[in-house]
Amino acid sequence: MSTADIVGQVAGAFVTLSLIPQVIRVYKMKSAREISMMFTTMLWLGLFGWIAYGFLRNELPIILWNIIGAAITASLVYAKLRYGRG
Amino acid sequence: MSTADIVGQVAGAFVTLSLIPQVIRVYKMKSAREISMMFTTMLWLGLFGWIAYGFLRNELPIILWNIIGAAITASLVYAKLRYGRG
Repeated sequence: MSTADIVGQVAGAFVTLSLIPQVIRVYKMKSAREISMMFTTMLWLGLFGWIAYGFLRNELPIILWNIIGAAITASLVYAKLRYGRG
Repeated sequence: MSTADIVGQVAGAFVTLSLIPQVIRVYKMKSAREISMMFTTMLWLGLFGWIAYGFLRNELPIILWNIIGAAITASLVYAKLRYGRG
């Protein structure tokens, strides 16, 4: 593994896992009014795009990280639908 | 440009630009209570990691997209500092 590979893995982990504290926060507050539906939708579409890219390139880390990201984003979409009104 | 390259470009654009409607929303609402500071901080660190990765690999699109992402995230951090209390 090159330095670049390691930096890329760490960067990918930070970006993808950054969504977890955001999801925890809206579930704790039971409020997602400030969360933009356009944000979650575009993010989700983009992550599915990355999954497709990973399959086309046969790059397992890209596939796996973006499946994790899409799953976390799904829980943010659910929070928005449940707590986003008002 | 291969199909994978095009899919990757579109996916990258969606993920990075998804933050724009989120930033617009918190500035419009003048409220960022629900935005997690841990989310914005981890995202920012991760994006700087991707910029470093781009330099190490000499991949200009990665550098540019992540500079754009870091700039948008900066405005979300600013919104959090300004409107996040209460």
